[in-house]
Amino acid sequence: MRMYDIIKKKRDGGELSREEIDFFIKGYVDGSIPDYQASALCMAIFYTGMTEKETADLTLAMAASGDTVDLSRFKNLTADKHSTGGVGDKTTLIVAPICASLGCIMAKMSGRGLGHTGGTIDKLESIEGFNTALSPEEFFAQVEKTGIAVVGQTGNLTPADKKLYALRDVTATVDSMPLIASSIMSKKLAAGAHTIVLDVKYGSGAFMKTPEEAEALAKEMVKIGKTCGRNTAAVITNMNRPLGNNIGNSLEVTEAIDVLKGNGPEDLREVCLTLATQIVALSKNISENAARKLTEDALNSGKALNKFKEWIVSQGAKNENPVFKKATHKHEIKSSVDGYIIKTDAEKIGISAVILGAGREKKDDIIDMSAGIILNKKTGDKVNKGDVIATLYSCNESSFTSAEEKFLSALKISDTKPEDEPLIYKII
Amino acid sequence: MRMYDIIKKKRDGGELSREEIDFFIKGYVDGSIPDYQASALCMAIFYTGMTEKETADLTLAMAASGDTVDLSRFKNLTADKHSTGGVGDKTTLIVAPICASLGCIMAKMSGRGLGHTGGTIDKLESIEGFNTALSPEEFFAQVEKTGIAVVGQTGNLTPADKKLYALRDVTATVDSMPLIASSIMSKKLAAGAHTIVLDVKYGSGAFMKTPEEAEALAKEMVKIGKTCGRNTAAVITNMNRPLGNNIGNSLEVTEAIDVLKGNGPEDLREVCLTLATQIVALSKNISENAARKLTEDALNSGKALNKFKEWIVSQGAKNENPVFKKATHKHEIKSSVDGYIIKTDAEKIGISAVILGAGREKKDDIIDMSAGIILNKKTGDKVNKGDVIATLYSCNESSFTSAEEKFLSALKISDTKPEDEPLIYKII
Repeated sequence: MRMYDIIKKKRDGGELSREEIDFFIKGYVDGSIPDYQASALCMAIFYTGMTEKETADLTLAMAASGDTVDLSRFKNLTADKHSTGGVGDKTTLIVAPICASLGCIMAKMSGRGLGHTGGTIDKLESIEGFNTALSPEEFFAQVEKTGIAVVGQTGNLTPADKKLYALRDVTATVDSMPLIASSIMSKKLAAGAHTIVLDVKYGSGAFMKTPEEAEALAKEMVKIGKTCGRNTAAVITNMNRPLGNNIGNSLEVTEAIDVLKGNGPEDLREVCLTLATQIVALSKNISENAARKLTEDALNSGKALNKFKEWIVSQGAKNENPVFKKATHKHEIKSSVDGYIIKTDAEKIGISAVILGAGREKKDDIIDMSAGIILNKKTGDKVNKGDVIATLYSCNESSFTSAEEKFLSALKISDTKPEDEPLIYKII
Repeated sequence: MRMYDIIKKKRDGGELSREEIDFFIKGYVDGSIPDYQASALCMAIFYTGMTEKETADLTLAMAASGDTVDLSRFKNLTADKHSTGGVGDKTTLIVAPICASLGCIMAKMSGRGLGHTGGTIDKLESIEGFNTALSPEEFFAQVEKTGIAVVGQTGNLTPADKKLYALRDVTATVDSMPLIASSIMSKKLAAGAHTIVLDVKYGSGAFMKTPEEAEALAKEMVKIGKTCGRNTAAVITNMNRPLGNNIGNSLEVTEAIDVLKGNGPEDLREVCLTLATQIVALSKNISENAARKLTEDALNSGKALNKFKEWIVSQGAKNENPVFKKATHKHEIKSSVDGYIIKTDAEKIGISAVILGAGREKKDDIIDMSAGIILNKKTGDKVNKGDVIATLYSCNESSFTSAEEKFLSALKISDTKPEDEPLIYKII
């Protein structure tokens, strides 16, 4: 078998066999296939696409390229939730305890934030004492004990995907649906959960800009998951505006706890209930209606909140009711006009939060856990001149000028009330 | 400027600017742009093509990437002939003396054979004493004295093309019209001649399999040449069957001398006269009819033969009438049936000659200058059972079995006379 022939076959629109895809992935990881052949293949895939079978084979080959997590001892109750990334997206902190309180096993790995999107691991680390770097033994003990463990990526998971993604990132071959889908799903397969529920976001703050693109990606990923024998579903959610009102690490944990207490913003609560419902329905093999009743009850009864407390304390938190250091400075943004907010652009608000210190521009930037934004008003709300639209928090007072400028560029106010955009576009 | 943005622009069908193409070629040659980005760009070009302007800019950038030959002292009389490669193609040995005998300056570089196609430099080296490795001073002295010099590629000509071609060769990005055309034309531009006449071959023995493909390539190359300020024309010729009757290095020189003596096969004579006519018409700025009269006269009068003798002696040949060592063995192939030859597949006959020792499978194989094939019959000829169709020559008797087998696979004999295929498909 020669890599040249594989590139040529794909270039001319042929379907690669399982053996050819395995040959490519093994050879690319062991270095016998050079980057320049891999990038030519990725560009050919960009143009010619991949069939369902090819995409599933590629996903399996990448999942098998490194360590895999064996969760088989927990039977079919293991579940994972994956978000394609957004602004103010703290759903894992709410969904995991809801589902675990109902008997699901949430043993998962999460990532850190980069650019305008946050990461669950950073948020958890804003809780004093919380340990995101468990050893495999500690990880499994934590899962056995509480039904939840959330850790950073450890071990040599999907090295093929890591190497290939880094290559695609510098060769303009990221934006290929089968390559995006197989990259995400290979990590999910390697992470071992039997049920996988995907939160595919669309909008200004998301990787996919339109609901149609998000739907295409969601379908592709759900197909892969099912082909590979996992319960898989996807919820397509709106990321034209931030999710919830708080952006920034400790601010988001605070808001998540509010929701677990039965309060918090309606949009965040609804997305969490929808995701949790899918997980519970699939992993317990019950109807969506029955699952929805269970998840609402878990939130309303305090069961989910208790599970959250149990989880974080077990994973090292000093206090089951976390206390956060406050930012040393805050700055209110007030409306200069009367009208309706017709836009709170999620990406720009995410960047504003990064300027305040809540996120990273480069991988090794240090985060100010107290920094961020609390929105008082969002798209659709009426404002009067002088109303506080948002409050910025930071330990670096000098960041307010450019953070405010960026924030204001995210905002549009008009005389006419905008039409409601759906929060949840579709469930696949 | 970032290579990433250049790849993405081309990927999405944009037109690269002169500056972007220069940035790519300079960076690729100096190593600051890695192979994996160059191969991704080539694959994007494979799918999206290049505009006329882009192709010309790429050609100029590659031509300027290394040494260039300055022939300006010879004014506008310098001319080059380039063949895209075929079997039995000894036209340079005839065309160059015809044109030089009429005052054109044929100062050119040629290549060696590889695979089923031969190379002019190998053919010339079958002449005892002929020196294809002149120093720049010797090269110019030779041109001043005789109006012809043909040497192997020397110096650091078009390093960008060399590096890029080697990459395309292993990433399935060779078959792209603008990349093929710019590769050939960059070498022609760097070689310095003011008039460039291209012999674009189509058929089983050529890189382009159909006349339509050859025409597309010819048009692309002529456009580049003209855009870059050179007199350029292309002749599209048939390579479904070998050109002339002799294949193999010294056998081809012998046949070329036959044509220069006013004999030799009609197809070879006609292709040579057509190419020479284009060169003379363009470089002397006269009509094709006038040029055709001049070239026919040069052949018929012996002027071209005399120029050939002067040239080879001046370039080191021991004898103006070269004497060749004969192959130690020969083997006749006879027809086993009566009928018409309807196919003498050029590629397979070329491979048969390689088996006999006349060519190279790998770059460092050694050539048997006496080896080759003389065809007594070609496509369209009537044969009777027992007629000699061809004679194989080799110093390696053991090669005859598989050479004959390959030769016979090239041959088709039928009861019905085939329709004539045109020898010259078009002049662009």
